[in-house]
Amino acid sequence: MHICKFFTTFVADLRIIMEKITKSQVKLVKSLQLKKFRDELGLFVAEGDKCVSELEKGFELVYRVQSTEYRVQNTEYRKQTNSLLASPKEIEQMSGLKTPQGVIGVFKKRVNGLVDEGISGDLVLALDGVQDPGNLGTIIRTADAAGFTGVLFSPECADLFSPKVLRATMGSIFRLGFSFPSSLPEALEQYKKDGYSVLSSQLDGSPFYERQDVASSFILVIGNEGNGVSDAVKAVATHRLCLPMRGGAESLNAAVAAGIMMYDLTR
Amino acid sequence: MHICKFFTTFVADLRIIMEKITKSQVKLVKSLQLKKFRDELGLFVAEGDKCVSELEKGFELVYRVQSTEYRVQNTEYRKQTNSLLASPKEIEQMSGLKTPQGVIGVFKKRVNGLVDEGISGDLVLALDGVQDPGNLGTIIRTADAAGFTGVLFSPECADLFSPKVLRATMGSIFRLGFSFPSSLPEALEQYKKDGYSVLSSQLDGSPFYERQDVASSFILVIGNEGNGVSDAVKAVATHRLCLPMRGGAESLNAAVAAGIMMYDLTR
Repeated sequence: MHICKFFTTFVADLRIIMEKITKSQVKLVKSLQLKKFRDELGLFVAEGDKCVSELEKGFELVYRVQSTEYRVQNTEYRKQTNSLLASPKEIEQMSGLKTPQGVIGVFKKRVNGLVDEGISGDLVLALDGVQDPGNLGTIIRTADAAGFTGVLFSPECADLFSPKVLRATMGSIFRLGFSFPSSLPEALEQYKKDGYSVLSSQLDGSPFYERQDVASSFILVIGNEGNGVSDAVKAVATHRLCLPMRGGAESLNAAVAAGIMMYDLTR
Repeated sequence: MHICKFFTTFVADLRIIMEKITKSQVKLVKSLQLKKFRDELGLFVAEGDKCVSELEKGFELVYRVQSTEYRVQNTEYRKQTNSLLASPKEIEQMSGLKTPQGVIGVFKKRVNGLVDEGISGDLVLALDGVQDPGNLGTIIRTADAAGFTGVLFSPECADLFSPKVLRATMGSIFRLGFSFPSSLPEALEQYKKDGYSVLSSQLDGSPFYERQDVASSFILVIGNEGNGVSDAVKAVATHRLCLPMRGGAESLNAAVAAGIMMYDLTR
């Protein structure tokens, strides 16, 4: 095919399959950077072709917004989705990134598994006020890799649907179940009654590698980056454990500590 | 003391002990956000009171720049250091953070231990092209906590003295030795001759928890976030190991994988 003819066909094709984004849509997508609007609208955003494609496997895509400067690689695929074209300036307005990646996906929020009815399975993680979105996403990714089936969130945790959390989960978000109890200590109390061990990770705990009598069903609790696990959770725990600190470091990054414990508990 | 008199004394005191930063100094501090200038000048910057105080334990402080809006808490301490006052606007110009923290320290670069002569000790880490500054800093912090004594850097790694790396190390940087061999495979070959096991962490490796015959002296190699350990390093390795991936996750974050392996190798 002659190169000019190819280009004309290509542009015409784009006009047919992709509408231009409206001002209201730009405003809507931008608003989803904030938890308030994500909650109100039941939607969330993710950026980057890889991240959007990954999330599409588990969430319903509402819009796929694409920069006019972004190279279209798979026309057949674009035809099947609600693709919208946006100028680089509009992409910049909507993006939460310093360097926008040219593709933004808007998805319907949905939580896998048994929301607020608890999580089944023997390997459960609980997050007690984990605040850093990067840590939160990395912990979910690691829990998936270690074979955990669900995660409980205390109300103080960062939002599971924040764009930064989603980027760090690398798609693990729709392979786990999530539960958001209004009181984490009360939820843990119920698990304890059901025979689960409740392991609190805390700097003043006893040596992690010398733990004894951990049941085959257990919940590992990871605390806030600065303050650790809350006193109410410590009180419920069946085990209070600390990883050894051999050098001069005072503590570990929360995601690293969670990874070391999850992998050792399931090795 | 009458509150007004106290305030006048306090301000006069500040004028004596703290000079105003000059335009050239602002330019110098700003330039240190770039590796090129850190290398040329032999200096580096860190931000935030906690991080600056921590680094002061191991590095020589050249300037301590403080925002005029930053609350002075310890006048005696300020007298002893080269403190400079800067306007919030100047702080913003110099800072690499979205939300500057009001305190910037400029330090002399120095590397602990046996630079470019290798690292002694039984527990050594090698980084083969780790690019993300947050990962790099977190890995150093974890190595310190796990009792490792030194880290080898391949030339492709992020700069040890970048502000983001320093923030993530949480002060562990001056408790370890660092070596920057021009060829990591050649350096590893030498360690192997000296009786060290060389453990390559790679996705196509054999099961990590079934490893055998690891010597009491070993080097664990962590690879690049996207491409893993290089072929040249894999060829030198005595062990090629992979952590189990039980769920749907394809890989782990590099810092988390490093943490799990370091702690298991030293448990």
